[in-house]
Amino acid sequence: MDNTKNILLGHGSGGKLSHDLIDGIFTKHFKNPILDQQSDSAIIPINSKNLAYTTDSFVVDPIFFPGGNIGNLAIAGTVNDLAVSGAKPLYLSVGFIIEEGFPICDLEKIVVSMAMDAQEAGVKIVTGDTKIVDRGKCDKIFINTSGIGELEDKYLNVGSGSGVAPGDKIIINGSIGDHGMAVMAARNELNIQTHIESDCACLNNMISKATSSSNGIKFMRDATRGGLGTVLSELVKDSDYGISIDEDKLTVSESVRGLCELLGFDPLYVANEGKVVMVVSEDDANKVLESIKESPFGKEASIIGEISKDHQRMAWLNTSVGGRRVIEMLSGQQLPRIC
Amino acid sequence: MDNTKNILLGHGSGGKLSHDLIDGIFTKHFKNPILDQQSDSAIIPINSKNLAYTTDSFVVDPIFFPGGNIGNLAIAGTVNDLAVSGAKPLYLSVGFIIEEGFPICDLEKIVVSMAMDAQEAGVKIVTGDTKIVDRGKCDKIFINTSGIGELEDKYLNVGSGSGVAPGDKIIINGSIGDHGMAVMAARNELNIQTHIESDCACLNNMISKATSSSNGIKFMRDATRGGLGTVLSELVKDSDYGISIDEDKLTVSESVRGLCELLGFDPLYVANEGKVVMVVSEDDANKVLESIKESPFGKEASIIGEISKDHQRMAWLNTSVGGRRVIEMLSGQQLPRIC
Repeated sequence: MDNTKNILLGHGSGGKLSHDLIDGIFTKHFKNPILDQQSDSAIIPINSKNLAYTTDSFVVDPIFFPGGNIGNLAIAGTVNDLAVSGAKPLYLSVGFIIEEGFPICDLEKIVVSMAMDAQEAGVKIVTGDTKIVDRGKCDKIFINTSGIGELEDKYLNVGSGSGVAPGDKIIINGSIGDHGMAVMAARNELNIQTHIESDCACLNNMISKATSSSNGIKFMRDATRGGLGTVLSELVKDSDYGISIDEDKLTVSESVRGLCELLGFDPLYVANEGKVVMVVSEDDANKVLESIKESPFGKEASIIGEISKDHQRMAWLNTSVGGRRVIEMLSGQQLPRIC
Repeated sequence: MDNTKNILLGHGSGGKLSHDLIDGIFTKHFKNPILDQQSDSAIIPINSKNLAYTTDSFVVDPIFFPGGNIGNLAIAGTVNDLAVSGAKPLYLSVGFIIEEGFPICDLEKIVVSMAMDAQEAGVKIVTGDTKIVDRGKCDKIFINTSGIGELEDKYLNVGSGSGVAPGDKIIINGSIGDHGMAVMAARNELNIQTHIESDCACLNNMISKATSSSNGIKFMRDATRGGLGTVLSELVKDSDYGISIDEDKLTVSESVRGLCELLGFDPLYVANEGKVVMVVSEDDANKVLESIKESPFGKEASIIGEISKDHQRMAWLNTSVGGRRVIEMLSGQQLPRIC
C-alpha cells in the first residue's frame, strides 16, 4: 500500500479500497493467525473452548432514520456479526464518543433503543466508556460496540465458507437495499420523501432456529456495508467454484428500486442491517428456508441462487431480461457513513 | 438526570459529571448485575470460568505527543484495565474512526506502535473495524479498543476494593501527572517547551509480578482520567474507612509541578497512563513494593499512605507544610481529550 497517500472515504466502503487498507496496514502489522482469518468474528480459544469476538464502530449520518437509529445499529451490527459466525451472542461492550452540546434527551433515546434491542436479542451490555469531544470535533455521536459469543465447534468454519460446494443453495432472508436507501433518503440535503424503512434488526434468534433446523449451515454472512454483491464476490474470491444468482429471485422494494435508480446506485451493493446470506446443501435448503420464514425478519426469505462448478471465482447475476453479468467487488466508495 | 440539558465536556472528565451521566443514563437503562459492578473491567462468566472484559475509546488531542501516540494509549489503556482487574490480558479488538484526508503514513505509525505494544504486553489484536467519515466530521482519528482477559478467582474483588481494611498500605508505581501534562504541553496553541513525557505503558507484566509476590493484593486501579485523586475518592466513597496520603511521598516531577502551577491544575487530578494504585496489607507492602521496583515502569514506586479507621468515606492529603486537605471527587471538567 502506498503510504504517501491520504485516507479516502472509499477506504471505509467495505469494498476494494477497504481491503487494500486492511491488508496493507492492519493485518500487515497486527499479523497473527486469528486475525488473519478475517471473518465477521475472531475465533478465540479460552479455557479450551472457542469464543467468537467482534467489534464495529457506528458513524451513521443521520443518527435517527426511518426504522431505527445509531443505537439500534450498534446492537444489531455486533449481535449479527456474532450470530453469522455461528455463535450465541452473550455480552457486549459499548463505547460512546459524543460531541459537546449533544442533547441528553437524544442520547437517552439512543440508549433506550440499545437497551430494548439487547434485551430482545438476549445479550447483556456489561462494560462501557464515554468520551466527550469539543464542539465540531465529531459529528454528534459515534458508537463502538464489541461482542462475545459462545461458539459451537461445528460452526468453526461457517464464516470462511470452506465447506461450500457446487450444488449448494444460497438463501437470503428478504429484500435488499432497505437500510442504505432509508438512510440516504433521510439525509436532509436530498429532501426526498419515501416510505423506505431500514431493515435494522438483531437476527440471532432467527439464525439460531435456522441452524437448529439444518444439518449444518455451510456459510453465513450479514450483507451490511457493500451489500449482497460484496458478500457474494468475497465468497467466491479464493474458491474453486462459481456463484449463480437469479435477479428474479431477489426482492427489492419498489421504493428502494426507484430511489436507487434516481441516485444511481445498484441495490446489490447497498447496505442492509438485517439480512443474512446463507449457503446450505440442496437437501437442507427447504427446511432452512421454512424455518427462516417463521421469523418476523424472514417472511420474504428466498433461495436466490446456487453454487456452481462453472465460472470459478466469479459470481454471476442472471438478469430478469435474460442476460448475465458479473457481480464484481465494489471498487471505491458507494455510500459513506451508512452504518 | 435532567435530560433537557446538553452534553458538556465535563461529562467525559472521569469526575462527578461523568458519574452523573453513567448513573442517570447508561446504568439506568442498561441495568444488569455485571454492569452494575462498575469496575475497570466487567467480570463475565463463560463456560463456568470468569473472564474480564473492558472497552475504552481514545480521542486524545494531539494524536502524537512526547512519550507516545493515540495508538500506544489505545493498547495500554485496555491492557491496564484488564490487568488492574486481576486478569491476564489475552485478546484485543480495535475500531478505527478516521477522517477523510488523514495521512496513511500517520496511520501506519500509529498501527506500528500498537503492534509493538501488543507484542510486548503479550496480547493479540484479533478483530477490528474501520470507518471513514468525511472531512471535518471527526478530528483526525479516534480509536476504540476492547479487551478480554483470564481472571483468577482470587482477584474477583480486586476492582471493588471490598477486602480493603484499616492499616492497609497504598502503593503507586511512580510519579503522577506526566501523561496529562505531556499532552497539554504538546497542544500547539499553548506553545510551551517542556521535557515532560507521557508515562503511557502497558503495566500487565509489572502487575503480574506484583500479584505473584503478594498474598493477595486487595485493590488495584489505574489512575487515568481524573488522576490519583479520583481513584482515592472513589475508593472511600461507599466504604467504612478513610484514606490518609502523605504529600511528601508523592512523586511529581519539577516540570509537571511547574506546568501545573502555570496552568492552574492540581497534579492529583491529572491523568496518568502508566500508573496503578494498589492497596495491600501491611505485611505485604514491602514485598510488593520491591517487586514493582524491579519493573522499568516502577522504579520510583512508593508507599504513599494508608487506610485508616478515622474519617470514614473521606480521603485526606497530609500536605508537605503540615496541613491537611480533603481529596474531593473532581467536579466538572479538568482536561478534555487527554486520552
